Amino acid sequence: MTDESRSGCPINLSLETLGDRWSLIIIRDMMFGNRRHFRELLNKSEEGIASNILADRLKRLSESGLITRADDPSHKQKAIYSLTERAIQLVPLLAEMASWGRRHLPVSRTLSVRAEILEQGGRPLWNEFMDELREIHLGTPRPGTGPKASDKMHDAYLAALAEETITPRK
Amino acid sequence: MTDESRSGCPINLSLETLGDRWSLIIIRDMMFGNRRHFRELLNKSEEGIASNILADRLKRLSESGLITRADDPSHKQKAIYSLTERAIQLVPLLAEMASWGRRHLPVSRTLSVRAEILEQGGRPLWNEFMDELREIHLGTPRPGTGPKASDKMHDAYLAALAEETITPRK
Repeated sequence: MTDESRSGCPINLSLETLGDRWSLIIIRDMMFGNRRHFRELLNKSEEGIASNILADRLKRLSESGLITRADDPSHKQKAIYSLTERAIQLVPLLAEMASWGRRHLPVSRTLSVRAEILEQGGRPLWNEFMDELREIHLGTPRPGTGPKASDKMHDAYLAALAEETITPRK
Repeated sequence: MTDESRSGCPINLSLETLGDRWSLIIIRDMMFGNRRHFRELLNKSEEGIASNILADRLKRLSESGLITRADDPSHKQKAIYSLTERAIQLVPLLAEMASWGRRHLPVSRTLSVRAEILEQGGRPLWNEFMDELREIHLGTPRPGTGPKASDKMHDAYLAALAEETITPRK
């Protein structure tokens, strides 16, 4: 327990470490949207994150050991952000959060199909997805050979998007 | 999706609805500590919540349909707060948050034994605990007859507390 923590309760410490909602939104975008650069995180943001907030939260996430920052070998002037093992292990928490939101809040169809797939797949799919994230962010080859968890989610997203284009909804 | 929501993503809407960390801390205390009155929530708070923050967050939680407020029949001048079905369904999210905290952050032993029991028990125990909360907060008799999930957690907590009294730790 650090000196600044208000208690050693695991829920309290998690909330203190994860910070405000923008931190988890950034982790969500890195995790499910594979956004790794500042510009992508800024310009593709569904919630319209402000650039000063993004910069501040990336710094905090880095200080909390949830992300790392490195020079991108393919873009000399760009930094690339990676999730750490500790952040990858947030998949179950985010999956439960998405399930709860889908059940109780007025979510949009296209943005909630990934949550639906995650809920149906349960823990085995979460584990597959974490292995895939470890490959992408930590360079550890994933053990499985089947279709990727992210492909399953992305296919469902594209199907919902196509459906929405045919029958527009609010 | 309400007009004020930044997106219809279930994770974003959950974060917007759950608000800042104090809201989840209050739900945690009502859920795991069975604290139902303002004074209890204030005076027993491990994190030392301030009374103005507590009052504000209780109001917001009530507006978001996560808690209800009623006159306590046994204390004429006291209000009693109850969790709604929507809040009771946060058990899996809080269990995952507690597991994550226990694995990655410097938690205190006594405050994390409940998280350990919840993790070991998995979804069947979470379901039992939700049934128990429905009985307490919504008046729906729980279907099970075995030992209560809360008793299992409380026994583990008391055992850890006794151990800590014998061998004090920081």
